[in-house]
Amino acid sequence: MSIPETGLQIRSLVTAEGKLELSLAEVAVPEPGPDDVVIQVEATPINPSDLGLLVGGADMSTAKASGTKERPVITADVPPPSLRAMAARLGQSMPVGNEGAGLVVKAGSSPAAQALLGKRVTGLGGEMYSQYRMLNVAQVMELPAGATSRDGASCFVNPLTALSFVETMKMQGRGGIVHTAAASNLGQMLVKICKADGVPLVNIVRKKEQADILKGIGATHIVDSTSPTFMEDLITALMETGATLGFDAIGGGPLAGQLLIAMEAAASRKMKEYSRYGSGQETQVYIYGRLDMSPTLVPPGVGFAWNLSGYLLTPFLQKAGPEVRARMRQRVMDELTTTFASHYTAEISLAEALDLDTLHAYNAKATGTKYLINPAK
Amino acid sequence: MSIPETGLQIRSLVTAEGKLELSLAEVAVPEPGPDDVVIQVEATPINPSDLGLLVGGADMSTAKASGTKERPVITADVPPPSLRAMAARLGQSMPVGNEGAGLVVKAGSSPAAQALLGKRVTGLGGEMYSQYRMLNVAQVMELPAGATSRDGASCFVNPLTALSFVETMKMQGRGGIVHTAAASNLGQMLVKICKADGVPLVNIVRKKEQADILKGIGATHIVDSTSPTFMEDLITALMETGATLGFDAIGGGPLAGQLLIAMEAAASRKMKEYSRYGSGQETQVYIYGRLDMSPTLVPPGVGFAWNLSGYLLTPFLQKAGPEVRARMRQRVMDELTTTFASHYTAEISLAEALDLDTLHAYNAKATGTKYLINPAK
Repeated sequence: MSIPETGLQIRSLVTAEGKLELSLAEVAVPEPGPDDVVIQVEATPINPSDLGLLVGGADMSTAKASGTKERPVITADVPPPSLRAMAARLGQSMPVGNEGAGLVVKAGSSPAAQALLGKRVTGLGGEMYSQYRMLNVAQVMELPAGATSRDGASCFVNPLTALSFVETMKMQGRGGIVHTAAASNLGQMLVKICKADGVPLVNIVRKKEQADILKGIGATHIVDSTSPTFMEDLITALMETGATLGFDAIGGGPLAGQLLIAMEAAASRKMKEYSRYGSGQETQVYIYGRLDMSPTLVPPGVGFAWNLSGYLLTPFLQKAGPEVRARMRQRVMDELTTTFASHYTAEISLAEALDLDTLHAYNAKATGTKYLINPAK
Repeated sequence: MSIPETGLQIRSLVTAEGKLELSLAEVAVPEPGPDDVVIQVEATPINPSDLGLLVGGADMSTAKASGTKERPVITADVPPPSLRAMAARLGQSMPVGNEGAGLVVKAGSSPAAQALLGKRVTGLGGEMYSQYRMLNVAQVMELPAGATSRDGASCFVNPLTALSFVETMKMQGRGGIVHTAAASNLGQMLVKICKADGVPLVNIVRKKEQADILKGIGATHIVDSTSPTFMEDLITALMETGATLGFDAIGGGPLAGQLLIAMEAAASRKMKEYSRYGSGQETQVYIYGRLDMSPTLVPPGVGFAWNLSGYLLTPFLQKAGPEVRARMRQRVMDELTTTFASHYTAEISLAEALDLDTLHAYNAKATGTKYLINPAK
């Protein structure tokens, strides 16, 4: 195979004047150092965690297309409050894409790098919305025999996050988990993990069809947040499971607070005596996504031992240590096409990712909708 | 001194029908066991933490007075959402009053109890809105010579809470504290503690007069949340102090979220490079009061390592252990009329506490307004 001297890469630029510009840049295919491999990227997902960097706080209702079909350009206005938050990236043309998989087409001189030449690997390291991406061997994992790049594109963000929820539960000595946006790719992985590991899991969905998907893969506690009996259903499920730990992907609006209220109510109903200070049960909800960018609401009624926190995978992995990390990664490889199978709405090229209609579609972050970029397409 | 057989006590009853009833009950003065003392209560403050139990979630705009001047009765409607939260106390006539001080008029047979006979003591144990209150010797502290019951009425809730903030900062290895409602009795204690201990403290007030009070007792970082430059002033103060720990008495509304945003902004401004995942600085705000009962708002912009939690003194004291507790208590006694001096708006009798206008006044929980009940009056 002949390797070109340059490849295309998606870039996101926010200017000091408050403009977002998305474009394709032509960049040199790098020469690997001894421990590096160059991957021809074949599959890289658009996760909610990528969109923050990609759209840079812009108001996408102002987005306009220009350029050519092969070299599309998108521009949009970045409102002043977002612009302030972007101060540190102004004027820098930034590559995007947390994770992805592809074929190793060049390898450094070390045995570890050479062993991967011609193999399909999956990697985490940013800049994956590129035709060619160089990574250190420590940042990649070889895919199992027969696995495609599409199978291995989403090996890190969702699988490790789902596994980290169960690890967090064990570290904190809690009895179960409640999860929102439960019909997402990540949510479905979590259902399978918890079923296999015997971990009580309460799944919160927003539609009957989502409940049906989860039932189909063996979920037992499913609560619909749009039901008029939502709070009662949730309290009942929390009493049955003993879950005092929640992971919320929605972020904004009332849901995270409702989880805390329902956990407190479930604990209070088990009390014999009234206490003005609530149940005393320590509860924890982590916000790991912000599908809703409005403020999170925490009303009274949550007791006094509640905790609401931000959650990111990377600090968790650092805290968990090398043994836990290795165990988690091995499980992802072992169960790549079962537990950790991802479902994609469409497979698009780099140029198609900068098509205005397509961009609006994936930026809507609807549960059950996920786009996969194939830069080799 | 002759001790009557009975004494008056404030009672709060919430009925299943959704009525709050406040009244004075006549209860027997108890006979002390070996390790008990009976206190003739002379001073017991109305803290925000007492009001939750006293008003029982009632809508006090519906409050009506009945009964006599000596035996007043207040009734009010409890709206359905509050009533649900009160399920465990329905139909129980509950005594009120966390802390207070008075004269030991009866003592049990043990040497520890006998040693307190005729002494003024301060106690924590509930039911202090009573003419006579029996407590175990372990629940009381003898006041220093010359101290009045008024001096010693508020030895526990505010002083120990203020001290616990500094202890929490040390336990979490943080560099400073930010405090809201900073001109309160508790806030003024905190200013004095932090000044003596060299702890950087950012004080958030809502009025110029409150800022002046704090300046007068030596506060250096004072920020007015009603100023148009509030967020910038706060970020500057947080950058100067390095405070990543907040204690918020307001609870509802935007303030707690603003603290988290300002902490994240202060940490971000010290960063060399943009990260879509924020500064990585772990931040913590504790809500220890709910002067505002509307939902707490946490918008985006807080980074990903933020924590917002409920805070109560009692679990802190349990976690801190006996040595820390003893040290904290000793400091309160040593600095009773200096660091821990409380200021009261008015001293009222038990019956006056159930006067409708007076009740509205103290239930407003305005910063700088605090009522003291003298049941011996």
